[in-house]
Amino acid sequence: MLTLVFLSPIIGIVGLGVAFVLFSGIMKQSPGNERMIEISQMIHEGAMTFLKREYTILAGFVAIVFAMLSVVISFNTGIAFIVGATLSMLAGFIGMKGATRANVRTSAAANQSGQQAALQMAFSGGSIMGLTVASMGLIGVCIFFITFDVVATAGNVADLAGFAMGASSIALFALVGGGIYTKSADVGSDLVGKVEAGIPEDDPRNPGVIADNVGDCVGDTAGLGADIFESYVGSVIATITIGAAMVDQESYMSLPIVVIAIGLVASILGISSMKLMKGFEPESVLRYTAFVAAAFMLAGSYYYITHFGMPWTVWGALATGCFAGIAIGLLTEYYTGMFGPVKKLAATTATGTATLIIGGFSLALESVAPPVIVIAIATYLANDFAGLYGIGLAAVGMLATVGITMSVDAYGPIADNAGGIAEMAELGPETRAITDGLDAIGNTTAAIGKGFAIGSAAMTALALFSAYTQAVGLESINLVSAEVVIGLFIGGAVTFAIAAMTMTSVGKAAMQMVEEIRRQFREIEGLMEGKAKPDPSTCVDIATKASLSEMIMPGVTAVLAPLVVGLLLGAEALGGMLAGATVCGVMLALLMANGGGAWDNAKKYIESGAHGGKGSEAHKAAVVGDTVGDPFKDTSGPAMNILIKLMSIISLVIAPLLIV
Amino acid sequence: MLTLVFLSPIIGIVGLGVAFVLFSGIMKQSPGNERMIEISQMIHEGAMTFLKREYTILAGFVAIVFAMLSVVISFNTGIAFIVGATLSMLAGFIGMKGATRANVRTSAAANQSGQQAALQMAFSGGSIMGLTVASMGLIGVCIFFITFDVVATAGNVADLAGFAMGASSIALFALVGGGIYTKSADVGSDLVGKVEAGIPEDDPRNPGVIADNVGDCVGDTAGLGADIFESYVGSVIATITIGAAMVDQESYMSLPIVVIAIGLVASILGISSMKLMKGFEPESVLRYTAFVAAAFMLAGSYYYITHFGMPWTVWGALATGCFAGIAIGLLTEYYTGMFGPVKKLAATTATGTATLIIGGFSLALESVAPPVIVIAIATYLANDFAGLYGIGLAAVGMLATVGITMSVDAYGPIADNAGGIAEMAELGPETRAITDGLDAIGNTTAAIGKGFAIGSAAMTALALFSAYTQAVGLESINLVSAEVVIGLFIGGAVTFAIAAMTMTSVGKAAMQMVEEIRRQFREIEGLMEGKAKPDPSTCVDIATKASLSEMIMPGVTAVLAPLVVGLLLGAEALGGMLAGATVCGVMLALLMANGGGAWDNAKKYIESGAHGGKGSEAHKAAVVGDTVGDPFKDTSGPAMNILIKLMSIISLVIAPLLIV
Repeated sequence: MLTLVFLSPIIGIVGLGVAFVLFSGIMKQSPGNERMIEISQMIHEGAMTFLKREYTILAGFVAIVFAMLSVVISFNTGIAFIVGATLSMLAGFIGMKGATRANVRTSAAANQSGQQAALQMAFSGGSIMGLTVASMGLIGVCIFFITFDVVATAGNVADLAGFAMGASSIALFALVGGGIYTKSADVGSDLVGKVEAGIPEDDPRNPGVIADNVGDCVGDTAGLGADIFESYVGSVIATITIGAAMVDQESYMSLPIVVIAIGLVASILGISSMKLMKGFEPESVLRYTAFVAAAFMLAGSYYYITHFGMPWTVWGALATGCFAGIAIGLLTEYYTGMFGPVKKLAATTATGTATLIIGGFSLALESVAPPVIVIAIATYLANDFAGLYGIGLAAVGMLATVGITMSVDAYGPIADNAGGIAEMAELGPETRAITDGLDAIGNTTAAIGKGFAIGSAAMTALALFSAYTQAVGLESINLVSAEVVIGLFIGGAVTFAIAAMTMTSVGKAAMQMVEEIRRQFREIEGLMEGKAKPDPSTCVDIATKASLSEMIMPGVTAVLAPLVVGLLLGAEALGGMLAGATVCGVMLALLMANGGGAWDNAKKYIESGAHGGKGSEAHKAAVVGDTVGDPFKDTSGPAMNILIKLMSIISLVIAPLLIV
Repeated sequence: MLTLVFLSPIIGIVGLGVAFVLFSGIMKQSPGNERMIEISQMIHEGAMTFLKREYTILAGFVAIVFAMLSVVISFNTGIAFIVGATLSMLAGFIGMKGATRANVRTSAAANQSGQQAALQMAFSGGSIMGLTVASMGLIGVCIFFITFDVVATAGNVADLAGFAMGASSIALFALVGGGIYTKSADVGSDLVGKVEAGIPEDDPRNPGVIADNVGDCVGDTAGLGADIFESYVGSVIATITIGAAMVDQESYMSLPIVVIAIGLVASILGISSMKLMKGFEPESVLRYTAFVAAAFMLAGSYYYITHFGMPWTVWGALATGCFAGIAIGLLTEYYTGMFGPVKKLAATTATGTATLIIGGFSLALESVAPPVIVIAIATYLANDFAGLYGIGLAAVGMLATVGITMSVDAYGPIADNAGGIAEMAELGPETRAITDGLDAIGNTTAAIGKGFAIGSAAMTALALFSAYTQAVGLESINLVSAEVVIGLFIGGAVTFAIAAMTMTSVGKAAMQMVEEIRRQFREIEGLMEGKAKPDPSTCVDIATKASLSEMIMPGVTAVLAPLVVGLLLGAEALGGMLAGATVCGVMLALLMANGGGAWDNAKKYIESGAHGGKGSEAHKAAVVGDTVGDPFKDTSGPAMNILIKLMSIISLVIAPLLIV
């Protein structure tokens, strides 16, 4: 059985190989005309500059934490931390490279060969991120699983948590930084461009457009990639940790690794299956590939689990997670897609902006309970099937086909960018229509992806929570004790505080952006008439600086909070804090992601002609709603996902200090 | 010691006597000219009609629940339930009577005798509610404490919970119904009046204005009164229940009753002290009266506790609650009053409505953590002083001077009404200036009162939670078990679902109101020119019907949720659910109350001349923010307070069914 674990890194290397082949394939295609190359080069450089500066700051952080971990916990934990952090950054870098090369070629394909080719190109670009995340996660976990010899030396299992902590820390900074970047640029350029100057989105005259497109890459691609990477490794490591306490250690500790190896193979099969679906609608294609992969993963895991003599109920827990993930994705689609709730929301614009905001907020509140009930049912079933181990495995089941789900997610911002490039390079309405179509699908997949990310974060946090209590040696965490109640309240409060910080940061950075764009329209003669060019670099610079300085506080707060509570109030209170943060964090994440998604699509629905269409009073109200929703869905909401995982993983890492 | 408990109802009767004297004093004053009498009569009738219809519906609910409790739990619990419900309704009725008589006399006093007399009148009106709530709560608890002989027959203490459940059920319906009433009328008449027709607030031409003023009475007076009444009796009964398990039962079980008796005397002293502060600013007068009462309560309790041989640490827990209540009130004032945060928020209107909404939401998120930290610290200290009993007593300490804090709260809507009557009866700008000044103070006291209500609800819920675990015989509630985690998630989800229902209801009812007001402006000739009168009765009718039908679903959900979880998943899962609901409910309540309060005052700040003043673009944005904030702060937010207490109290009542 361990042999299969030893073989798993090879599957990871195959995954990276496929990603490389896809990248080479992309690079062979035409990047379009000179103007397109110039624009895409600016986006590429903006994104890479951001990443370089971000990683420079993070390198300092990683070094300090490495030193502290090595001294206070163990050298192995420190090493695992560094590698986890590095792999997360590397995955972000590679994924971004793929995205910024695929975006312009998607525009070119839309212009020269039509929808099918453009879809293929954007999806290939997304697959690079998906496969890199899955492969690197698999390779990384395997290496430490083997070198730390965790099966034979159960005590070493604690060191594994360092790997997840490395991934998690980078994820928080990447997502918060990227989220502030993308939304300050988006809100800023929309407020001046669309609202004040009355020019269309992505208009080349707007100095903020390049920054906006860079933001799509660094926020939606790199940020989300880091988020999913850490859920992925976090769920696997939590399950291994729980498995270490079971009778048949070897089987249960190696199972999660084997499952994600099977999942990676299934994802590659899913990606390949796309070519067989040529006649289908693009939206269906994206969905079916994910289903194909899930089916292969479930079948493969079933064979493995029963073949190696584990009870089928273990597979039941795995399948529960997989189906719960799909259910949460579909619920998100219902609340944020072009269905009843969004159409009703669009109708509230009849009485103005205020009722639209109230309506969107009601919808967001309403959308919280159903996915939470799914999570509750999944937790119940998984626990019934296989105890706490089952909860961990359910999280793994939800995330095993990350290779494909992440590919679908990462497709979105590439299509969005392709539209921007088509607009800026003036490729004409036909090309724009194709990229708009692909972009609209991207919005839906992004919303589903967000629901999925929240669901998997919740399950991962629960698994990590179980692993923590085990690591710290607590038989129970007593909710009746005052310390635990206090921890619960503090945990909840931290999520609100971090949400506040990130949202305030977007507001501040967007105001700076607004002023710079206004300045350029005022000072550069002929800009509005299209006779002079804007200077996008200052906007890129503002977004970069603002997002990097603003990501520090929330990041440091999230890292320190569990440490302070754990050392001051003890292990049990820290357990309470994790529970409070998980519950409140999941709810806030759903509230914000779905509210933002619904406002966005209510605007799109009106733009498609409903309630007076573009330019109507209803549309003006809808633009306000969309702008309000931006930081909800792309900054503060996603930050919650990582926050709850990061705090759990840090608790797991510092568990040796708190053993009761 | 029990003698003092026997004497307590007499203090309650004295309290009612003072309220009656105040009422007679109010009725002796002039109600102003004919027009004023006519308007106030319409408000009075609208409010009474609402209450009558509401109480008719609730009578059916009370009868059904009484029958069920008598059969399933015990006849005593059923009787206590009916009396609790009846006293809550009676307090609402009396308080409303006082308010609807005092409002017009406040306008008259402002017109004829100036600010001091008007303040005195409005405060007397508010004191009727404050004293009635405190006295009836004290009398009710005492009667059952004595007749059930709970000290000698410890088993009977469970029956007491029926009284709190009666108060709590009525509170939820009253607050949700009243909250939907007041905000649908307010939002509806503002949207057509201020935004579309461009006429001032409270303009007599607006058909919705009477409904809006009725709403202030039924939502802000009766609703808030029911809320505080139930915190008051809930905290006392929870503490008695916890005290039943202590060694010196008699002392500890009777202490909370003695404390609120002392608190009622202190409140009467505080109310009387107002006459001594003639030279002070109105705002300071209101604040100092509350401090005077708190000081008397603390001094009296200290004497009692030490004199009867209880350790001083018991008093420490009580004082902790009292100070925590004040701290939370001050924090609320900081976030929603005319200080830095609100002024910064007003500045975000420079870039339009979207940034104002984002800014307000950020502020609201930010305002959650500080009061939660205060609650956490208070819980820690109270527990340190006197264990779980200390937590209960801290809640009692926070609420003991309800006689005065509720008076200050109820003052607000009376001042608001007085302004409306002055405007409608065209008493001139000087009178309006006085009532506006009193109203502005009322807004601040209302915000503080809301913070206080949330803080006391949180402490009461914690006390009830402790009482529940004790009643159900759980040594511990283990957060590591899947059932408890599921309960935690469900509890959180219920709060979001109820918030969604109430907010959606306001939106729906407001849309109906908008259509009716538009219809009248369209169909009644000469209305806009002031030549014809509007028909306010249809608007009153719409608000009444909508709010009464919309209050059913949230009410029934809140009542059934703990029952379903308790019977299906067991006592421990229900404990988890209560914890999840309390944590999420408190956070949501703070978020909504403070966000709404801040938007409201940002508008008032701009109206005072900042950022271009009335009529500017900034003001238009601020009006949208204020409208969005209305259901936040007056409907959904306050509903959270009751929800968490109601679910805890129902759990306590059904505890005999769940004993483990």
